[in-house]
Amino acid sequence: MALVVQKYGGSSVADAESIKRVAQRIVTTKKAGHSVVVVVSAMGDTTDELLDLAEQVSPLPPGRELDMLLTAGERISMALLAMAIENLGHEARSFTGSQAGVITTSLHGAARIIDVTPGRISTAIDDGSIPIVAGFQGVSQDSKDITTLGRGGSDTTAVALAAALEADVCEIYTDVDGVFTADPRIVPAARRIPRITYEEMLEMAACGAKILHLRCVEYARRYNMPIHVRSSFTMKEGTWVTGSIEGNEMEQPIISGVAHDRSEAKITVVGVPDRVGEAAAIFTALSDAEINIDMIVQNVSAAATGRTDISFTLPANSGQVAMATLKKIQEKIGFDSLRYDDQIGKISLIGAGMRSHPGVTARFFDAIASVGTNIEMITTSEIRISVIVNQDRVDEAVAAAHRAFDLDSEQVEAVVYGGTGR
Amino acid sequence: MALVVQKYGGSSVADAESIKRVAQRIVTTKKAGHSVVVVVSAMGDTTDELLDLAEQVSPLPPGRELDMLLTAGERISMALLAMAIENLGHEARSFTGSQAGVITTSLHGAARIIDVTPGRISTAIDDGSIPIVAGFQGVSQDSKDITTLGRGGSDTTAVALAAALEADVCEIYTDVDGVFTADPRIVPAARRIPRITYEEMLEMAACGAKILHLRCVEYARRYNMPIHVRSSFTMKEGTWVTGSIEGNEMEQPIISGVAHDRSEAKITVVGVPDRVGEAAAIFTALSDAEINIDMIVQNVSAAATGRTDISFTLPANSGQVAMATLKKIQEKIGFDSLRYDDQIGKISLIGAGMRSHPGVTARFFDAIASVGTNIEMITTSEIRISVIVNQDRVDEAVAAAHRAFDLDSEQVEAVVYGGTGR
Repeated sequence: MALVVQKYGGSSVADAESIKRVAQRIVTTKKAGHSVVVVVSAMGDTTDELLDLAEQVSPLPPGRELDMLLTAGERISMALLAMAIENLGHEARSFTGSQAGVITTSLHGAARIIDVTPGRISTAIDDGSIPIVAGFQGVSQDSKDITTLGRGGSDTTAVALAAALEADVCEIYTDVDGVFTADPRIVPAARRIPRITYEEMLEMAACGAKILHLRCVEYARRYNMPIHVRSSFTMKEGTWVTGSIEGNEMEQPIISGVAHDRSEAKITVVGVPDRVGEAAAIFTALSDAEINIDMIVQNVSAAATGRTDISFTLPANSGQVAMATLKKIQEKIGFDSLRYDDQIGKISLIGAGMRSHPGVTARFFDAIASVGTNIEMITTSEIRISVIVNQDRVDEAVAAAHRAFDLDSEQVEAVVYGGTGR
Repeated sequence: MALVVQKYGGSSVADAESIKRVAQRIVTTKKAGHSVVVVVSAMGDTTDELLDLAEQVSPLPPGRELDMLLTAGERISMALLAMAIENLGHEARSFTGSQAGVITTSLHGAARIIDVTPGRISTAIDDGSIPIVAGFQGVSQDSKDITTLGRGGSDTTAVALAAALEADVCEIYTDVDGVFTADPRIVPAARRIPRITYEEMLEMAACGAKILHLRCVEYARRYNMPIHVRSSFTMKEGTWVTGSIEGNEMEQPIISGVAHDRSEAKITVVGVPDRVGEAAAIFTALSDAEINIDMIVQNVSAAATGRTDISFTLPANSGQVAMATLKKIQEKIGFDSLRYDDQIGKISLIGAGMRSHPGVTARFFDAIASVGTNIEMITTSEIRISVIVNQDRVDEAVAAAHRAFDLDSEQVEAVVYGGTGR
């Protein structure tokens, strides 16, 4: 008998029918002899509807009140889910984030979990009941005000609660079958990845794979909590996200997947005087404006002019603020001009096996070149290579890279996971 | 500078526009130099929509979860109202019933307030902020579960909070101008009552006047908290509900108002053996079935038969259960038959001045007879006379009684409140 934390997102509980289906699924797990704790998001469009109401009464609603408002969403879904479970003859009890002991910082809209003290959840489990916990919300340690955790909050709640309860697994239910080697909408031959490490999943998440949020994977890694990402529509195995994968490392896949991201923009600062500290001044100004920089490339200085170009990428929705920030310091730094390009795409190749396999970079670049695509920027980490290309070229380049690493073979799991398949 | 608790019902905060209007009104009170604490109900149809969702997932939702679900309603309205106030440049903070210290019994759906410990509300007031408190809800003392107070719950929250904060007045905002001498839909000449005692208001509420719930008036009487019932659409004075009214009692109105109620039914138990304890057996059975009995009339026993008829009234929606309960004990008690009539109406004449004015009963009965209406049952209290008539006759009989006691004079306030008008 295991202790399983199951998290269901908004699309899994979009209406009464979906809620009843999810209830059935939870009861199936319970009947199999496991203890189940459920974390649930707000129903489908509830959050958007509440935001719309807020906008109607105030152009700039205060964070404390916005959090109070939005947390009504999970309150509704969790109570309905508990009712649906009770209707199937099993005891269920819903708990707000506060009641479940999710203690956070005071930053409304983007609070971080400080601690989880799930005393009431443990009691409910001991009573044979199924606790249904509101995702995405908590209570601030200092002011005892209701907080929300921001993007990826419900997944993070689930993992944090699983860790605090020392659960055996945290199952994240979604509307796809798991994590794929590439976005199946772009690469129809993309395959489900049966098992992936936290590190790889972190790189995937950071590089545009939307299935799990960075924060939740980081939390899982810190507490070594296995995550099982799976579909709420089937009983199939999904993707296990865990620590190091057992078995001979040589038998691990070289590449786990190809991620892409169209949400970034590129800014080039042209003609920066090549003096010590000028680059630092630029990035200090951007950091002060709370802009997250992703990739940075500085060209070799042309000795004749004593000037250099610095390019960097950032979320496209920070573009305007970044450009304004830089214009303000143009005179002081003395650069020539700014260039802005939001027609870029980032393609990332991720795989723990990269460490022990030289030649990955060359094969990746060859693949991209083979479909006539120009690489504008490059960054690498131990287990990732990312390149920036023209946004129009993203689909073809992703497909080419996927093919080049044999990811879209029919027997992809057997080929890539040679060791585990035998 | 006064401390004012204002309660706004669901129709006052039905949509974003209404919420902004209420916010404006609250700020006006604040600007006048008063401290304001607001109690708010769920927006217009929210509760019905949530109940509808509950019905879709479970035919018989558990009380704990239904309370968790329904309390989402006030969470939404209170957060939106706080936002709207902040948007007008005044600080506001919303609080759930639990956060506001509303401690209740554990009876989900109909919890009673045991205590109010409004520490956070007091702090907010001291900080110059406007606390917005969710009506209708609290937290159970034993299990720390979220509870709802049932019918009249938001008004009761407001009065209880006002009492705990030692406020100067509890203003109950509604969509009419106050308490009227009769239902203006039936008696167009009905007038607003400027001032009424708790006792009279209790009788009015018990006899079908829907404007204030019995519970809330009882609470106000216990703590001697003045209630000011007024319209949220105008700045006019409404009706003050207080303890004894100042001035010479002879100058009080004889009759405060005429209330009516069409929601009751009458059951007659025909041919009950006239033995000691038979009536008790009947009402014990009904009480065990949790049926509230209102009026009871027992005919004089016909000596020849040794049998008597017992009639009583009860809420019509308890009718089926009551009939079934009585049928079960028919054989044991040995009564002849049961008669059920839900086509009845109750008309009540209420006034503290009745005590010192004989002849009220006769004038009341005359008025009803004058419009050709037959009286089926009668009960009286110190400050009330109620009669049961055929439901079709209610409107005419109410109008006749209203006229007979000079309530629909043009100068009704001057006439009835002779003392205060001069």
